[in-house]
Amino acid sequence: MEAHVFFLHLMLMLLAARLFGELAVRLGAPSVLGELMAGVVVGPSLLGWIAVDDVIKLLAEIGIILLLFEVGLETDVGKLLKSGKRSAFVALMGFFLPFLFGFALAFWGFGLELLVSLFVGGTLTATSIGITIRALTDLKRHNSLEGQVVLGAAVLDDVMGVVLLALLYEFSIGGGVNLTNAGKVTLFVVVFFLIAPSMAKLISLAIHKAHHATDIPGLIPTTIVSLVLFFAWLAHAMGVPALLGGFAAGLALSRFFFLPFGIALKTDPKFAHEIEGQMRPIVHLFTPIFFVTVGLSLNMREIDWTSPFIWQFSLGMLVLAVAGKILGALLLREDWATRWRIGVAMVPRGEVGLIFAELGRTSNIFSNEIYAGMLLVVAFTTLVAPLGLKLLYRGEPDLAGR
Amino acid sequence: MEAHVFFLHLMLMLLAARLFGELAVRLGAPSVLGELMAGVVVGPSLLGWIAVDDVIKLLAEIGIILLLFEVGLETDVGKLLKSGKRSAFVALMGFFLPFLFGFALAFWGFGLELLVSLFVGGTLTATSIGITIRALTDLKRHNSLEGQVVLGAAVLDDVMGVVLLALLYEFSIGGGVNLTNAGKVTLFVVVFFLIAPSMAKLISLAIHKAHHATDIPGLIPTTIVSLVLFFAWLAHAMGVPALLGGFAAGLALSRFFFLPFGIALKTDPKFAHEIEGQMRPIVHLFTPIFFVTVGLSLNMREIDWTSPFIWQFSLGMLVLAVAGKILGALLLREDWATRWRIGVAMVPRGEVGLIFAELGRTSNIFSNEIYAGMLLVVAFTTLVAPLGLKLLYRGEPDLAGR
Repeated sequence: MEAHVFFLHLMLMLLAARLFGELAVRLGAPSVLGELMAGVVVGPSLLGWIAVDDVIKLLAEIGIILLLFEVGLETDVGKLLKSGKRSAFVALMGFFLPFLFGFALAFWGFGLELLVSLFVGGTLTATSIGITIRALTDLKRHNSLEGQVVLGAAVLDDVMGVVLLALLYEFSIGGGVNLTNAGKVTLFVVVFFLIAPSMAKLISLAIHKAHHATDIPGLIPTTIVSLVLFFAWLAHAMGVPALLGGFAAGLALSRFFFLPFGIALKTDPKFAHEIEGQMRPIVHLFTPIFFVTVGLSLNMREIDWTSPFIWQFSLGMLVLAVAGKILGALLLREDWATRWRIGVAMVPRGEVGLIFAELGRTSNIFSNEIYAGMLLVVAFTTLVAPLGLKLLYRGEPDLAGR
Repeated sequence: MEAHVFFLHLMLMLLAARLFGELAVRLGAPSVLGELMAGVVVGPSLLGWIAVDDVIKLLAEIGIILLLFEVGLETDVGKLLKSGKRSAFVALMGFFLPFLFGFALAFWGFGLELLVSLFVGGTLTATSIGITIRALTDLKRHNSLEGQVVLGAAVLDDVMGVVLLALLYEFSIGGGVNLTNAGKVTLFVVVFFLIAPSMAKLISLAIHKAHHATDIPGLIPTTIVSLVLFFAWLAHAMGVPALLGGFAAGLALSRFFFLPFGIALKTDPKFAHEIEGQMRPIVHLFTPIFFVTVGLSLNMREIDWTSPFIWQFSLGMLVLAVAGKILGALLLREDWATRWRIGVAMVPRGEVGLIFAELGRTSNIFSNEIYAGMLLVVAFTTLVAPLGLKLLYRGEPDLAGR
């Protein structure tokens, strides 16, 4: 594509994101919802001004990775571990219930084939960390108890989702299931989260040293972004979703991060603060590109709205997708408000769900109708949850108004 | 290209830029020189780890546009206009002398064809604003008198270079020269620089308003980058180099900018300062990508080092390229130190020169040998000038040490 055309497209995406974001907020919805809609409006679904191409895809991926870096940066590992058991419970429930529900309805309800039904179930498993956290951040609740539980749970079932994907992929090509392979993935994930933060921490100390040694400006943006890109790559190389690499790097640089072998590597809060300050504009520049791109890649025109199947299928799946995530949370031992908030916050599906659907289509497991139906479900969960959260926090002391 | 591979490449470019930049400074050279070398080292010339692809090209172009935005942001229009006459003189001299010298040597010295010789001359005309300004900025001299003169002159002969390119292009395809066309280009350039800054200024006021109205963070990075992208697009659409669009946008947002109809649109220094603060990390992230990319695109392997012609041709052209730029400056009515500094600062060729050479090759006007020779000249001017400047400022009160 010609450079100047690309400039125009990028500008359009950024401005549309801002415009619809502001609009959403005026209408009492979180801004992330507006940014998703922006993609739907300027994308193939409506105006068709912009289509997703490789460059936009790359920038969008950098956007979500940087967003998770910032999420990690603001995460208190201590809190996260404290909420660990609840997160694990929510994650397990929120993973298996939607999978089983989705599979059951597809297999017995609609009489789809085994493999198709498995993929349908898989598409419903993973919560979208990006959208969930953005929705909570828009409400200034990402550091609340429920925020911590949801974050932990979302990370966990993202990982489980990827493991399942590996399993089903094996199954779809080889016919059989290769458990050692899935085991390897799981192992890698665990190893990654054991070594990555400490590794990133050590590197950040070198950057800190360099920061005091150099006269050339611009050390922090270039080196920190490099650090994030490296861990995104490392994550991918180990079969972990790249965005979790960004999350790990952020955790390591967070002011609240501590290593097992503790004080030796204490974070200099001034440096951590400077990193936050310099990275924020970069994160704010890239993240809208991701959310708009999600909207762009949901082509509503691919859906044959006249077919009754689509409506029954996607509506049924939507109900199960929502119920499956909320149910687990309702079994927690918290006050009901918190349970509901956690449950609803877990509802949005995103990255991993789209990967499932995409793989399902490209490997001819999903018919166009099924694919469209699943897209619809993913779309609605991402659109409904932020609104639900907004409602659940109504009447609370409004932290959202800055 | 797979996303994770791209992450690795981008990381490599950023780190190499930083590493070689630091190295250059330790060796007493400006860091921009190191960043160019970084590209040569990791690129096809040496290690061949990274090749320029469309994504990198786009990011690099955004980098140079953002750099010129920052240059504009720090430019005092008053000063610039005051140095206008000298800039115009230096620009005219620095444009025509290299063109004539280059043409003469090619046509009579090496007996090349008319069109070839014209393209050779054209390749030598335009100073690289980006490299010149970075070199002066590394020495903290971009706001000195010579800095202003050079900036003005570089902008002017960039424009003249583009007009000439339009002329020669007509000539190369149509055979004849279409002056009205060149006239149109010139007109557009003038119009652009008359309207663009005022237009950008008006838009920036809207952004300023929005800045106070919104609760959603990240307004400045997204809207200001959009503004810059828009003027880059507008510039290109009017036949002006895109990077000058970034420059115009920067000028308009500069703290020192004033409009003919003056005080009505006075800049709020606090807001201008906030823009600078939030844009700086973004600029620092993107600009190294540009300089490394310049290094990447100079493939030294394309050159047949054994051919004596290459040596004679490129050496002869190099001498004329340097002499042609310096001579004009030496005729200025300034103290000799200033004249020399202005002259040497004008020496680096870059973007426009490379476009000339590229067009020359793709339209089969340049043989591979001539093309390689011209690349060599462009390369050496970009490498030599920063060193020369560094020497010319030796003994001066060292502003460079932060």
